[in-house]
Amino acid sequence: MRIAFLGLGAMGEPMARHIADKGFALTVWNRTAARAAALAQRGIAVAASAGDAACGADVVLLCVSADRDVLAVIDQIAPGLKPGAIVIDTSTVSADTAREAAQRVAPAHFLDAPLSGGVEGARNGRLSVMVGGNATTLVQSRPVLECFAARITHMGEVGAGQATKAVNQVMVAGIAEAVCEALAFGERLGLPTERLLGVLGAGAANSWFLEKRGASMLDERFDSGFKLGLLHKDLGIVRAMAERLGAHLPVVNAAYADYQTLLDEGRFDEEISALIRLKRRLFA
Amino acid sequence: MRIAFLGLGAMGEPMARHIADKGFALTVWNRTAARAAALAQRGIAVAASAGDAACGADVVLLCVSADRDVLAVIDQIAPGLKPGAIVIDTSTVSADTAREAAQRVAPAHFLDAPLSGGVEGARNGRLSVMVGGNATTLVQSRPVLECFAARITHMGEVGAGQATKAVNQVMVAGIAEAVCEALAFGERLGLPTERLLGVLGAGAANSWFLEKRGASMLDERFDSGFKLGLLHKDLGIVRAMAERLGAHLPVVNAAYADYQTLLDEGRFDEEISALIRLKRRLFA
Repeated sequence: MRIAFLGLGAMGEPMARHIADKGFALTVWNRTAARAAALAQRGIAVAASAGDAACGADVVLLCVSADRDVLAVIDQIAPGLKPGAIVIDTSTVSADTAREAAQRVAPAHFLDAPLSGGVEGARNGRLSVMVGGNATTLVQSRPVLECFAARITHMGEVGAGQATKAVNQVMVAGIAEAVCEALAFGERLGLPTERLLGVLGAGAANSWFLEKRGASMLDERFDSGFKLGLLHKDLGIVRAMAERLGAHLPVVNAAYADYQTLLDEGRFDEEISALIRLKRRLFA
Repeated sequence: MRIAFLGLGAMGEPMARHIADKGFALTVWNRTAARAAALAQRGIAVAASAGDAACGADVVLLCVSADRDVLAVIDQIAPGLKPGAIVIDTSTVSADTAREAAQRVAPAHFLDAPLSGGVEGARNGRLSVMVGGNATTLVQSRPVLECFAARITHMGEVGAGQATKAVNQVMVAGIAEAVCEALAFGERLGLPTERLLGVLGAGAANSWFLEKRGASMLDERFDSGFKLGLLHKDLGIVRAMAERLGAHLPVVNAAYADYQTLLDEGRFDEEISALIRLKRRLFA
């Protein structure tokens, strides 16, 4: 099976590496060519364009940043796709973009397959994949997805993977709001923070985010994890999806506004737990 | 060591039972006498008044509902406390009420010791206790607290236990907002809910609340867990504490308003996950 991997960012690069490690014939491409250098040194084929990488591949994976990037890459690869090829987009974009991409690659097959588990999950090959699309196409794609996934869940037709990721991001953003506001309050009350993290994590207040980011945020370390600029982008997608349903989501809107404030301060690359900066100002 | 236990509600009754099971000489009291009947049948002494129960006891535990109840009981027991007695309040009240109670029982000793772990934790004797007060007093009290606690954490002087509980409740309330809004969104998007819970719980969106209450709220079961009327009361305490610091906490204020709406509909006794009722209306 010939595989093409398009987009070698913090997620894509380790994912492509896992695919090559499993022995698949892999060709990669990245918009900024320098990011492909490490993979080239390992003997992985690097194509000069997305179209070249995808031409003749059995499975084409995308891992890029935003809706317009996905559709731009789709338009570059669509003419050269071989009959029966499968295109899998692991980017986080809207369900509408997933459906549009599926139409543009037809008669080739399409799966939307956004990811959860972060950079750590990509590195150790333990991502959770939320898949929308045809069930038979997913069965054929599993050997490739299993290179980097611990869990692959079929959520429904094309778009259902992105819908699931949107729900996931509502929870992620709202939990960050709760945890950061609570910890800033605890700091202001003068509580010993190490014991506080222990007590909170032992009961009904516990969360993945408190366990993984509680200590680092209290130590002012915001350099690894999930960039807040990307969560802000995802929340924009969620807001547009909700508006098309006639809904305004208060938790989402509050988090979107908070991350906008942090973006305005130039903090795109900080981890989402940097939200505690704003929460501390409530007590200033 | 002679122990008095005052307040035999859903938490207090199993806690008192654990103390008796460990062989301590126990006298109990409850405002509504009928609630003491089950303990009386097990041979536990039941007093006619809080003052009678506490008179001559080495350790007096309180487990009641609200700030004014705590101070009323304190005033009833203070005159009969023996020199060196320890009064431990496990209710969730303000840090100010804890400091006031400590003054009223002096020269007897006082610890504020609110709980986390819910009715399940009280039943299986695995509560987490957040303690404020003198360290030596806590050392003397440990054998009694260990009857019903898996974890006992000293957080600082009198009031620090209640301050910790307030921080805990900010997290609990904010996480409920995030999880209920996200799951209502997922329902509206038509996603298969059982798979959705599995995917969300496998990654960065996970929380104690999603794990323990996700399935029951989607099944419309709100009859066991943490009553939303009590969380609303706790959030009122948090708001007052924050206001004394000159702060308004957006996550807390939003949750307080939502639970007020549910209280206005007569839902005091429903579990806090009944918040999903309001979140579903966002899509109506």
